[in-house]
Amino acid sequence: MNRRSLLAGTVGLVGSMVMGSTRSSAEPATDGLPADPTRVPGKAATPYGQRSSFETAGRVSRAWWASLTPLQDSHGILTPSALHFERHHNGVPTIHPAQHRLLVHGLVDQPWTFTLDDLKRFPAVSRLAFIECSGNSAIEWKGPTGKTVQDTHGLTSTSEWTGVALKTLLQEVGVNPQASWMLAEGSDAAAMTRSLPLASMLDEAMLCYAQNGEPLRPEQGYPLRLVIPGWEGNTCIKWLRRLKLGRAPFMTREETSQYTDLMPDGKARQFTMVMEAKSVITSPSGGQQIQPGFLEIRGLAWSGRGRITEVEVSMDGGRSWRQAALQDPVLPKCHTRFHVPWRWNGEDVILQSRCIDETGYVQPDRAALVAVRGVNSVYHYNAIQSWRIAADGLVSNVHP
Amino acid sequence: MNRRSLLAGTVGLVGSMVMGSTRSSAEPATDGLPADPTRVPGKAATPYGQRSSFETAGRVSRAWWASLTPLQDSHGILTPSALHFERHHNGVPTIHPAQHRLLVHGLVDQPWTFTLDDLKRFPAVSRLAFIECSGNSAIEWKGPTGKTVQDTHGLTSTSEWTGVALKTLLQEVGVNPQASWMLAEGSDAAAMTRSLPLASMLDEAMLCYAQNGEPLRPEQGYPLRLVIPGWEGNTCIKWLRRLKLGRAPFMTREETSQYTDLMPDGKARQFTMVMEAKSVITSPSGGQQIQPGFLEIRGLAWSGRGRITEVEVSMDGGRSWRQAALQDPVLPKCHTRFHVPWRWNGEDVILQSRCIDETGYVQPDRAALVAVRGVNSVYHYNAIQSWRIAADGLVSNVHP
Repeated sequence: MNRRSLLAGTVGLVGSMVMGSTRSSAEPATDGLPADPTRVPGKAATPYGQRSSFETAGRVSRAWWASLTPLQDSHGILTPSALHFERHHNGVPTIHPAQHRLLVHGLVDQPWTFTLDDLKRFPAVSRLAFIECSGNSAIEWKGPTGKTVQDTHGLTSTSEWTGVALKTLLQEVGVNPQASWMLAEGSDAAAMTRSLPLASMLDEAMLCYAQNGEPLRPEQGYPLRLVIPGWEGNTCIKWLRRLKLGRAPFMTREETSQYTDLMPDGKARQFTMVMEAKSVITSPSGGQQIQPGFLEIRGLAWSGRGRITEVEVSMDGGRSWRQAALQDPVLPKCHTRFHVPWRWNGEDVILQSRCIDETGYVQPDRAALVAVRGVNSVYHYNAIQSWRIAADGLVSNVHP
Repeated sequence: MNRRSLLAGTVGLVGSMVMGSTRSSAEPATDGLPADPTRVPGKAATPYGQRSSFETAGRVSRAWWASLTPLQDSHGILTPSALHFERHHNGVPTIHPAQHRLLVHGLVDQPWTFTLDDLKRFPAVSRLAFIECSGNSAIEWKGPTGKTVQDTHGLTSTSEWTGVALKTLLQEVGVNPQASWMLAEGSDAAAMTRSLPLASMLDEAMLCYAQNGEPLRPEQGYPLRLVIPGWEGNTCIKWLRRLKLGRAPFMTREETSQYTDLMPDGKARQFTMVMEAKSVITSPSGGQQIQPGFLEIRGLAWSGRGRITEVEVSMDGGRSWRQAALQDPVLPKCHTRFHVPWRWNGEDVILQSRCIDETGYVQPDRAALVAVRGVNSVYHYNAIQSWRIAADGLVSNVHP
């Protein structure tokens, strides 16, 4: 064989594939399929497509009120809307778009009720942004609990969001200079409600009616959702029906009984809106089994404070680090795909990734995070994730 | 009322909405829906989401072998996979991913057959790119034939594509220095086949297994598709089963009976792979009816040669032009969203858009295009589109 190999220091990929060929060629099912698809005319065009019946990747539900994105099956930086994680407090309401209204009131010059058609007439803005539940990886506070990366990190997803800039809407109704907080309320059966400090989100918040090029999906807030890029998912109120401007936080149920961070001294930190920088290796990841030879380590990194500037990967539990390549486009407050080629020699190792964002913040390891936060918290766990690869190739979640 | 208006020189949007409020609030249907969605617990989480039953935007089929993206209903720059246009020569085959193989042969050092799992082990690349059928807007050669923007321009869509760089694969099998053309063949019932000049696409071509974060949809080539950013859609061979390297074009049926441009002198131009810069206003567009007052003119621009650098909009049939804002991110060989605010005063006008790409190419008007190409062609129509707005607000396709 006279081949050049892309990967210096490894045997060619084709070589390593021969070794793995038994495993990589799963036994083909025959069940009525034509042996040769070129011999049978195919199906006609359809108004609205569906995925192949051979593909079954799905959101896993923790309960009826949450489902997680299968990050181990994800490609690129986008999450298909059908696989975007969901979290709701009393189920997904069914709302007729023509009946839906948004009331804007409180400390405004002119209270107003908007229909969806009204909102679509305003100048539109679009943005690719991740949304992460503040409870993403929450089970990891207790130890290495999640078995797969979907369990541990599946409450984050990225979409292109389109709607009206909050700023545009508020300029139209006129904001009283004394207004510094905004209450946002959903029209779900929980009437999910949060207080939001106005100044720190006014430049980026959007009232969205579209996701990934088409109207929002019901579980993502159809027909209207507040999206605040970089802030915890629960501030991105779905099924949005009301905005009220005021002088102080409204101290709703969600910011007292939930969404606070219990610190080691027993005090609770409130209004920790921003999701700090975080990364995770999605392949290989928990529950998978790999074979010796070449593979590409792949993962996602994101920061609620802006762009990811660097991701490093360790194949020895953090003793040494290798710089990963970042896939363009690297966008602020958006999933960033990283990858690094690797050759696994069959030894028991621990894989980790850590990211740095444009503010210079470095994703902490678990010990550093726990030193500050203790283990009383539920939310905002962003420690470095460790995947152990045992000698048999099985990948598992560990906290070394 | 004490309101500030975002839009200098217009009355506030809220004001103009009052005027249009009867029309914008469609009569709500009641059919069994709760009058107040906050009074009824909602639906549980699901493994794979679906759009709201109130949303019905769909691809329109020209025939069983083609369907068009509803650009008038699109948001942002992405096209949902379910609405990505489709074009096939003998229907959409059903292919078992574990049975599928890619043969690479001809002038290579080592012919090889790859399974899908083999390909997924190679380093992965992702890219947002448009695909446009060379027949997009073809009906406009004959005059103002399409009634809607879906009819006239719906054979273009943008996705995030993920797969293996062709370059990576060819480096592994080793390319004979004499190879300068590559045959790509699909495993559909037409065995759709095209010859591709190797040097001019080697840096960008991808063998894709994923689209918008999940496996390709069947009508987009499941399980494997060649994607050549910027080139006419028919070169992006779907259901890809074979690549053969050779010294010259293979002169397949598709490059002799189809996909040539018949010039005014009766000679046919071959291998016009690149899609030139093009833009279109999607809102307002053909078949819609608008009302006097504020609206935002919205549209898409794209170029097979790189980034869009500028889009201008004319509200007077091309006598004067106004610069449109481009929505970030502006990516090479990708749909770019543009928008410009406008106040329609009820006069009969003609709206147009024209774009410029980073090579300095300016989208031509129809007269300039026809002067060079005549009207014998079927493919590569990229003239400026004109939408006439009559005094009653009805928008129609005209060639002024």
